[in-house]
Amino acid sequence: MDNKYMKMAIELAKVTEGHTTPNPVVGAVIVNNNQIVGFGAHLKAGEHHAEKHAIEMAKDKTEGATIYVTLEPCSHYGRTPPCADAVIEAGIKKVIIGSVDPNPKVSGRGIKKLEDAGIEVEVGCMKEETDKLNDVFFHFVNTKKPFVTLKSATSLDGKIATRTGESQWITSEESRKDVHQLRHKNDAILVGINTVIKDDPALTTRLPDGGKNPIRVILDRELRIPMTAKLINDHASLTWVITTRLANKEKIDLLRDKGTKVLILDDDKIEISSLLYLLGEHNITSLLVEGGGTVNDSFLKSGEFQQVIVYIAPLLIGGEDALSSFSGSGIEKLADAKKLKVQSLEQIGNDIKLVLTKGEED
Amino acid sequence: MDNKYMKMAIELAKVTEGHTTPNPVVGAVIVNNNQIVGFGAHLKAGEHHAEKHAIEMAKDKTEGATIYVTLEPCSHYGRTPPCADAVIEAGIKKVIIGSVDPNPKVSGRGIKKLEDAGIEVEVGCMKEETDKLNDVFFHFVNTKKPFVTLKSATSLDGKIATRTGESQWITSEESRKDVHQLRHKNDAILVGINTVIKDDPALTTRLPDGGKNPIRVILDRELRIPMTAKLINDHASLTWVITTRLANKEKIDLLRDKGTKVLILDDDKIEISSLLYLLGEHNITSLLVEGGGTVNDSFLKSGEFQQVIVYIAPLLIGGEDALSSFSGSGIEKLADAKKLKVQSLEQIGNDIKLVLTKGEED
Repeated sequence: MDNKYMKMAIELAKVTEGHTTPNPVVGAVIVNNNQIVGFGAHLKAGEHHAEKHAIEMAKDKTEGATIYVTLEPCSHYGRTPPCADAVIEAGIKKVIIGSVDPNPKVSGRGIKKLEDAGIEVEVGCMKEETDKLNDVFFHFVNTKKPFVTLKSATSLDGKIATRTGESQWITSEESRKDVHQLRHKNDAILVGINTVIKDDPALTTRLPDGGKNPIRVILDRELRIPMTAKLINDHASLTWVITTRLANKEKIDLLRDKGTKVLILDDDKIEISSLLYLLGEHNITSLLVEGGGTVNDSFLKSGEFQQVIVYIAPLLIGGEDALSSFSGSGIEKLADAKKLKVQSLEQIGNDIKLVLTKGEED
Repeated sequence: MDNKYMKMAIELAKVTEGHTTPNPVVGAVIVNNNQIVGFGAHLKAGEHHAEKHAIEMAKDKTEGATIYVTLEPCSHYGRTPPCADAVIEAGIKKVIIGSVDPNPKVSGRGIKKLEDAGIEVEVGCMKEETDKLNDVFFHFVNTKKPFVTLKSATSLDGKIATRTGESQWITSEESRKDVHQLRHKNDAILVGINTVIKDDPALTTRLPDGGKNPIRVILDRELRIPMTAKLINDHASLTWVITTRLANKEKIDLLRDKGTKVLILDDDKIEISSLLYLLGEHNITSLLVEGGGTVNDSFLKSGEFQQVIVYIAPLLIGGEDALSSFSGSGIEKLADAKKLKVQSLEQIGNDIKLVLTKGEED
C-alpha cells in the first residue's frame, strides 16, 4: 500500500522535471482513512513546496493523515517557510519519506523536527526511485560539481565523420530532436574551441514547442574564438568562455564588451575537475558535453562524468583517418576503462539510443 | 487458421537450424478434419524431407488432408525421391506453401506437379517468416555466393583495442559465448593474415555441448602464414588459405603437405567478390567475417555482406591510435554509407547485441 501512494508521489514529481532547477523535484500525497485527500508537487523555485500544495488541497482532512513525500521535508526558512512546520501544524500523524535530503541545511533535520513533534516517520520507501528523481540535484549538492552527461552520435563503428570530414547527418532526425530535449534539460552545454571554429554552432534548443536554451560553455585554452562566432553574437542564450592565463587580455575585454562571460583558470591548461568546480560555483548543476573527440577524451580520462548517452546510427563508415567520438590518447589498459551500467536501450527512429551511468563510487 | 498451422511448421523448421546445410530448413504439418495428424521437419541432407516425415506420421489419415509446408515441395530426384510425388500418392487434397523454392531445379515445378495432379495449392502463407528461415540458403542459391555476416565486438566508442593493443576482453563472457554460436551456425569463418600472425587464433567453436567447427578461411595475399600457426597444425577443422599469384610456390606445397587447402586467385590482390564466388564454388553457403579492421573495411567497401552483428561493451576506450572495428580508408561520402536495418536489439550479459541486415537490393 505504501508503495502505491509513493509511486503516485514519484509520478507527480516526474511531471515537473526540468522546471525546478536549482531545486530538487518533489511529489507528495496525503492519505486519510485509505482515501487520497491531497497531492502536490514542487513546481518552481521560490514557490510552494510539494507538501504545502498537498496540505492546501486536503483542507480540513489532514488531521491524523499520512503524507507520502519523495524527499525529506525541509526544516529551514528559505524562500518559503519550512515544510516540516506545515506538516506538524496540519496535524498529520505519519510521514513516509523516500530520500533523505543531501542538502546539509536540511539533511536529517526535517526528520528530527517531525519526530520531536511526536510524528511517526518512515524513511527509505522506494528510495532507489526517489533518489533517481533527483540524481542531478543530489550529485550537485554532494560534490559541488555539475552532473556531467557525455553525449555522442556515431555510426556502428564509432565514427562521427567520414575520412573527408563529412558529418551531417550520421544520425536520424528523431535522434537529433532527442538531443534538443537533452539541451533543454541541462543547465549548460559544453564544446571545445575546435568545434566552434569548424562548425560555428548555435548550441540552442530547437524543439517544436520552444524549450529552454542551455548556457553555452566553450573550452578555449588560448582564447582562439573568432569574434564573428554565432555564440558571441546571437544572444540566443548566455555564452561562457573558459580560458587560461594564456589568453590575450585585450581579447578578454573585447569578448566581455560583447556580453560574453570569460572565466579564467589560473593554469596553462584546462583541468576538467577545476573546470567543474568553477561551473558549480556558478550554479551549473547539470552539464551536457557535446564533444568533439578531444574534449570527450579529456572527460573520459578525468573520470569526471556521471552519464553517457550514445546515439548509434545503423551504418558503417570505416576509415583509419575518420574521426571517432573519443580520440586524444585514450586509456591505456582495459582494466582502467570504467565499466558503465546500461540504464536504457531503445530504438529511436532508425537509430539506437543507449543511456549508461557510472556509479558515484567510481 | 492457416497461420496457426504454418506457424507450427515454421517452429518445426527452426528446430533444425544449423543442421541441414547445404539444404534448406523445412517444416510441415498435416491437418485432417481440423486435427493435426502428422508433422515433420527436414533433419539432415540426404535424409527424409519434412513432407515425408509428416506423411509417415499421419499413416492412413492423409486422404483428403491439407499439408502446410514452409517451402515448395521438390519435384526432382535428388538424394531422396520427389516430395510432390509423395504428397500426391498420400491423397492430400490441399497444399499450403510459405516460400517458393529459389533452386532452379525446383522453383515452380513442385507446384505445377501438384496442380497437374488436381491438388489445390496456395502459395505465400506467412512468406516473410518462411523466407527468413532460409535467408542463407536463398541467398546462396540466388547469388552463388555465401551469406556474409560481419561481426565486431567493440567499446561504446567503436574501439577493438586500447592504444597499446590490449584487446582481451572488451566484451563479456556471455557475448563471447554467443559468438561461438555464430561460429557453429556458419559453414566458414574468415580472418585476415594479420590476425593470424598477431593472435595465432584457433577459430574453433567452443560451446558447453560441443558444436560444429567452421572451416577456417584466411586471407593471405603474399602467403605470409607462419608454418607454426595453430590453424595449420591443430587439425581441429579444415583450414583454407586464400592467396594470389604473389604466393611462393614452395610454401604452397609445404602447406598442402600439412593438409591445408590453398586456393589461388589469378590476381595480385584479393577482390572480395571473386573470393566469395570461389567460396561458393566450394559449397560455403554462409561466412562469418571476424575482422580485423582492414578485412572488415574491404567487405564494407565491396558492399559484399548481408548481415552485421555488433556486440557493444558498456565502456569507453578513446585514443586516436586505438584500433577501430573498421579501419582501412573507409567510405568517403555519407551518402555512400549503406543504411542497415535493425533486426534485433538485446542486452546480453553486460553488453548490447545488435543484429542488422542489408536488403538484397542494395
